[in-house]
Amino acid sequence: MRKSSYISKNVIRRLPRYLRKLDELIAEGVERISSGELGNQMGLTPSQIRQDFSCFGEFGQQGYGYNVAALREQIAGILGMNRNFSVILIGAGRIGQSLIGNFNFEHYGFRLLGAFEIRKELVGTKIAHVTIADAETQRDFIRENDVDIAILSINRDHAQAVADELIDCGIKAIWNFTDAEIDPGDSGVIVENIHFSDSLLALSYYLSGEV
Amino acid sequence: MRKSSYISKNVIRRLPRYLRKLDELIAEGVERISSGELGNQMGLTPSQIRQDFSCFGEFGQQGYGYNVAALREQIAGILGMNRNFSVILIGAGRIGQSLIGNFNFEHYGFRLLGAFEIRKELVGTKIAHVTIADAETQRDFIRENDVDIAILSINRDHAQAVADELIDCGIKAIWNFTDAEIDPGDSGVIVENIHFSDSLLALSYYLSGEV
Repeated sequence: MRKSSYISKNVIRRLPRYLRKLDELIAEGVERISSGELGNQMGLTPSQIRQDFSCFGEFGQQGYGYNVAALREQIAGILGMNRNFSVILIGAGRIGQSLIGNFNFEHYGFRLLGAFEIRKELVGTKIAHVTIADAETQRDFIRENDVDIAILSINRDHAQAVADELIDCGIKAIWNFTDAEIDPGDSGVIVENIHFSDSLLALSYYLSGEV
Repeated sequence: MRKSSYISKNVIRRLPRYLRKLDELIAEGVERISSGELGNQMGLTPSQIRQDFSCFGEFGQQGYGYNVAALREQIAGILGMNRNFSVILIGAGRIGQSLIGNFNFEHYGFRLLGAFEIRKELVGTKIAHVTIADAETQRDFIRENDVDIAILSINRDHAQAVADELIDCGIKAIWNFTDAEIDPGDSGVIVENIHFSDSLLALSYYLSGEV
């Protein structure tokens, strides 16, 4: 799937939402859907939907709507879900454990290879099918397994130092659950943030306008 | 703080990031900062920053830069951090426990009043200073305490049903940690989502373009 042309950040951010909706429709046995009905179910206009999908080429057929399964596969491909990216987790506290136990990495096309923790009392414990390993072994593990993505779910005070170490080991992307800003320098490493506070404050902003 | 004029979603989403940066600067003892230096530290252009802040009126003084503490207070006000919103948590599994134990609600101006859980074995246990209460008591609690915000960190299969119940009890906003889409119907209730998969798939998209 080529994506040499410029695609806006807002479209990229909507694609996973389309994917979730399409997964729901597949589970419900829906085979075809019009842009009108899809928009209706997602709170978007049909023209918005057609415009979003047109960035990546034609998905639908005028008058016949979209083939749900085919559209799902195309979006999955665009999102790199067929790339089989490898993931490790750095920091197996509550958030880390929650991701190991509850997040369906395989469904999204990722392989969770391991989890690492600095607190010795957690090393060796098992969450789902993952045994927590000693953080001292993570550098070698990344190099030996050519790991693509590191989930950073450690204390914010150590976030940048650990990120620097991961980058030095050849990690290609960091999924950052600390509320620190990670600076990848000129490494080209991709940093994607889950900043809980940003989300709650956006909610707070909208709520302030209401009450 | 008036915000009758239209403010783009992208600006709203950037405000918490400015807040985090300003908190950092305050911790470092920085009192004034130019839009150039702030932009430099945040990877934004000075004109972007001036434009963002201009939506809310004038924060800075030409040639003198911004007063960091005053700017922080103004942004905090815009984000409703002075509204003292009350919050409860529905679902005290790993994610819920992590939020209770690690998220600094008070720092952002929120009061976490309680946490509720359906699994009897968790009821009565204590996370930080919060004792987990029985989910059967949450309806009365919301009504009696006029709760503003519910954090939804339960199983996705029950997400909509529980959300409907919360809305029925008069909750004004839902911070949704399930990967289900919550439909607030015509209630006017605000739904803000933390969809982990959306974030990981955006990362995956950008990484696919790199490797």
